[in-house]
Parts: sequence; C-alpha cells; structure tokens
Amino acid sequence: MNESFPIQWLETPVARPDETARQAAQARQAMLTKPPGALGRLEEIAIRLAGLQGITYPKIDCVHITVFAADHGIAAEGVSAFPQVVTTEMVKNFSRGGAAISVAAKAIGAELEVINLGTAHETGPLENVKKCDLGRGTANFSLAAAMTEHQLANALAAGRHAAERAQLAGTTLFIGGEMGIANTSAATALACVLLNEPPAMVAGPGTGLDSTGLAHKVNVIQRALELHRAHSVSPLEALRRVGGFEIAALAGAYIACAQMAVPVLVDGFISTSAALVATRLCSGVEEWLLYSHASAEPGHRHMLDALGAEPVLDLGMRLGEASGAAVAVPLLRMACALHNDMATFAEAQVSAQC
Amino acid sequence: MNESFPIQWLETPVARPDETARQAAQARQAMLTKPPGALGRLEEIAIRLAGLQGITYPKIDCVHITVFAADHGIAAEGVSAFPQVVTTEMVKNFSRGGAAISVAAKAIGAELEVINLGTAHETGPLENVKKCDLGRGTANFSLAAAMTEHQLANALAAGRHAAERAQLAGTTLFIGGEMGIANTSAATALACVLLNEPPAMVAGPGTGLDSTGLAHKVNVIQRALELHRAHSVSPLEALRRVGGFEIAALAGAYIACAQMAVPVLVDGFISTSAALVATRLCSGVEEWLLYSHASAEPGHRHMLDALGAEPVLDLGMRLGEASGAAVAVPLLRMACALHNDMATFAEAQVSAQC
Repeated sequence: MNESFPIQWLETPVARPDETARQAAQARQAMLTKPPGALGRLEEIAIRLAGLQGITYPKIDCVHITVFAADHGIAAEGVSAFPQVVTTEMVKNFSRGGAAISVAAKAIGAELEVINLGTAHETGPLENVKKCDLGRGTANFSLAAAMTEHQLANALAAGRHAAERAQLAGTTLFIGGEMGIANTSAATALACVLLNEPPAMVAGPGTGLDSTGLAHKVNVIQRALELHRAHSVSPLEALRRVGGFEIAALAGAYIACAQMAVPVLVDGFISTSAALVATRLCSGVEEWLLYSHASAEPGHRHMLDALGAEPVLDLGMRLGEASGAAVAVPLLRMACALHNDMATFAEAQVSAQC
Repeated sequence: MNESFPIQWLETPVARPDETARQAAQARQAMLTKPPGALGRLEEIAIRLAGLQGITYPKIDCVHITVFAADHGIAAEGVSAFPQVVTTEMVKNFSRGGAAISVAAKAIGAELEVINLGTAHETGPLENVKKCDLGRGTANFSLAAAMTEHQLANALAAGRHAAERAQLAGTTLFIGGEMGIANTSAATALACVLLNEPPAMVAGPGTGLDSTGLAHKVNVIQRALELHRAHSVSPLEALRRVGGFEIAALAGAYIACAQMAVPVLVDGFISTSAALVATRLCSGVEEWLLYSHASAEPGHRHMLDALGAEPVLDLGMRLGEASGAAVAVPLLRMACALHNDMATFAEAQVSAQC
C-alpha cells in the first residue's frame, strides 16, 4: 500500500476500556439480590459495558445504526440467489422504511442512516439515503482486485465518518449493517485469506443457493484466491483485493469507534468479516466489539472462533442489514436495567448464601 | 384423587389454535422483502403467535406476569445454598420493586402481580403482594406427601384465577414465575417421576450448591422417590406428592390459559416442570406454550427435550422469578413488528429470487 494514501488515521491508537469501572460493576453484580451468576451472560454484558463506557452504571440509550450498501463485481459469476438489481431495490426499500432494519431500528428507537457507497444501478435521488459514490460496485475479484487503493481508502473513511457522526451525537452503542448482492462471496474470500481456510470450509448458501449453486460459489472463490493469495500479504491488501466497499466501511467504522471509545455491536457474517479485518489492522479493536448473533451462514462460526467471540443470540438469522444486532439491543438494555436498578442484599435485607 | 375435590375444571377442553390465521401469517412471511427464512426463529415465532392469537398480524402488547411464592418442607434436608427465610425476604423485595423480575417487568412494560401461596415465615402486610395462604410451605416430601388434596386443588385454582385475571385484562401473553427456596428439588423430583429418570440425571446446583451439596440433594431426592414412586401413578398425584404450591399454581395457570386461548411464555427450570405436568394433565396444552430460555440448571434440557421445546434464548440464566421469560419478551415483540411492518416484494418493487 502506498504510504501517501490518506489512511494514516488507522495508526491512531485505540482507546483502552476503563478497568476501574469494570471492577466496580463486577463488585456491584455480586451484591445484587440473586444467587451469584444467576443472570448468566446478562451479568457479563453489563460488566463489559461498564468498562467500555467508563461508568459503574452503563446504559444503552442512544443507538446509532449505519447501513452501508454497495454492489460487487463478483455477482457476474452467478454466486448469488438474487439478481444484482436487488441491491438498488433494497436501497429504495430502506428509503421508504420497508426493510427489516427499517422496522427493527424503529422498534428499538435507534437512529438509522443508510449510505450508498456504489450500486450497479442508479437509484435516483432518495430520501433518508446518503450518497458516497465510490463507483458502480467493486470490480469482479475473480479477475482483478475488487478495489483501487483510492476506493479502499475512501470506503474506510466513509466508515470512520459514520462513527464520528455517531460519536458527536452522543451514541452509547454503534451498529453497522450492510446490503450488497454477492457480499457473502467477498466476506468468505476475505475470511479465507485471513484465517487461511479453504472456501469449502467457509462458504455457505448466502441468500439461498442450492447445493449446485454453493459448489459453483466455492469454485469461483477458489479461483479468485489463487489469483490474489500471493499478493494478499497484509490484511489491508486482502481487504482491497477480495473485500467490498461496505466491508471496508464497516472495518473503518469499527476501528474509528475503538479509537473514540464507542462500544460496537457487530451484526452477522459480513459484519464479522469486517470485524476480523479491523482487529488484524489495529490491535485493541477487539476490546470494543460485542457480538450480537450467530448467523445461519455456516462459516460464521469459523470467524467467531478466531475472534474468541460468543454472540448473545442464536436465532438462525441470515439477513444482514444490521438486523441481528438490532434484535439483540433489548437484551443489552435489559442487562443494564437489571444491573442498575436491582436492589442489593443490604438494601433489601435479604440473607446471602448459607 | 377423590373425585369430589373441585378440580373438574381441569377436564374443560383446551382451545385449538387458528390454523387459517397461522397459514395466512406463513404466506405473508414468504412475501416480505428478505430471502425466505432469513429471519430464522423470528419468522416461526410470528407465525405461531398468529395461530395462537387467531390473527394474521399478531402482537404482544399487554403482557401479564404472575409470580407465585411458596416455601418447601424439603428445605429442612439442607438441599439449598440459601436459608429458607430468603423466600420471605424475596417476597418483601418483590413488594418494594428491587428484585430482578420487578426491574425486568418494568423494563418491558408488563403488569406484575405477586402471590404468596404460603411462606414459612410471616411477611406481615405488604404492598403489591396478594395472599392466598395454603400453609407455611409444603410438607417435607422426603417424609410425606408435599401437599394435601385440598392444598393441591387450591394451588391449581390459584393459578387458574391468575390466568383468568390476565385474560379479563386483555393479556396477549401470560408469563408465570416462581420463588421458593428448595424448589429446584421439588421440580427435579417431579421431572424424575414424569420422565422416569434418576435424580442424578436431572438434579443440578440450583442457587449454587457445590458438588458435595449436589450429591446430598441427589440422595435426598432419591430417598423421596423411593417413598412416593409406587403411589405416583397419575401426574396429578405425582404433583401432590413431590411438587410445590407454586409449581401446582403454574400448572393450573398454564392449563387455564390453554383453555381460554391465551398464549404462554414459559420461564426456566421450575416453570418447565409445571409445563411438563400441565401437558400430562390436559392434552393440547402444549400448543399454547412457548419456551423463553434454556436454563443453566442442567436438567432443564431433559424436560425441554421431552416437551419437544426449543427455547428462544440461551444466556446461562438460572434465577427463576419469570426473569428469563421477561428477557425474551422483546424478541417476541420484534418478531411481530418485523412480520407486521416490513414491506412485501410487491409493495417495495423488489425482485424475488433468481
């Protein structure tokens, strides 16, 4: 990567969680009127959020969701169950509030912004959709690098800018989402490079391929990896060669959040590939990432294991758009409410364990 | 069981879910702007609730939670990590709003009622707690039957009355909870009889026994089962001999809900033992029961498997009080919101699968 490109911000050190607040929250959990550990993962979540927010009583009030949409040249290889025009159509659906994430964001009272990073078809002017045009989708990465260095730098910056807007608005939890026909192929290829796994171990049906379609997808990714592997020496170069605009933007957003001490709730398969590359790009980012759900896409488990991540939910979801993360938000809120509002043994005059 | 006791209401047939509404909801799911099945369990939940509520667009607005508290004579055998007085102390904690379920019910906007069915210690008059006194806890079931026939009938009726209050108030989801030191021993014994399993396969640490404590608990339950097994020919008699006031009340509530067509969200280990006995007492009750979470209590899995139940959440919770069910309510609401408010392919002019 040419040093002159504007990606020096990736070198900014990541913030450190507040160990004092984390310990104070842990001590509080032990005093609440319940057997120790009886709230299971909800206790861990409250304690972790306390450390990330630097307060004994964490809260998830202002949630910011940015959905990045983009097309993928690899779609030309027939690796998706849906036609490429669906990316554009779904951007319009976001604009009109009819998509899953539109409904879910409203249900949890989250701020939702949609950024079109480059679709193959024109959307025309749309309400509630920002444009940050990096091209008519990426190049077909089975033939060439998906992005130019400029496109990569600008996609990372688009993510950073979304994180900055969220931080300025006082966000207590950042969620990134994505929409892009064929982006499970890009995420799979990226995971294969970063985890050194063959595509057959990571690729899945995405939006609904049958077994023939899946075998074809594995072959396409295998060929692409043979083209790029020797050149993908750094995570950044792997991202440029086989990633996507929205994957790079998510990675940029996660890194910027970690630099600004904003906790992140990661969505599913595509978002986790962005989390994986973000943690490889900047040490310490992993501390700021919570994982919302285990995707039905089978390769998700490989990435989660590599990240040491244990998602909160396992509902067999595989939609993307940040939908799985939005569904998990009420659980994080409940973890905070229980932590903050339950009585202690002393306050309630309840006897402790025998 | 003497026929003259007032439990004839258990014979009232259970309502049938509305198959037409279920199918209409299923057809709607296939038209929403997402790959088929991409919302995973959230799709199943919305379709199931549509059938139970008899409408294509189900909703979870008015949630009613009844927590039944009661003491257990078996506590005298040293089978719990907490002293028996904690049942009484926790009833006071419910009264003041400091318990986990107090906080969780408020967070989800649910109506919460607490019914003291009989604690070993006096609570004195308490706000927000109803009294339905069946005695100072059950008898020690390692020595005698836990309940008289009168106590059993009245505990079942207490559950039925809670369900009737909920139904009258227009409840769209009923949740039962419990508090009772040593009640994992009663629930374990009941599951052992109904599933014909040895206590070592079902018993767990409850509120926090160590391995010595757990071995002792298994021995106590084993001895009790030897005393009662020959006489526990019917599920009702098993419930009377080794159950508890709150377990019987939960079973009565579940049956009454099924009779009145009110959907139920079952909590954890104790509640599932009540669900198990309810389904054995009245055929068709199982159709009305949704399962919220897999408890950390290891024997829960045995009961869930016997019931063919797959809970929505697995958070390692083991608190009871209805807390796990309350935590799952936002997921049911999200399932309904997505089902009801997402655009269809036709509305959004989005292309379907290739």
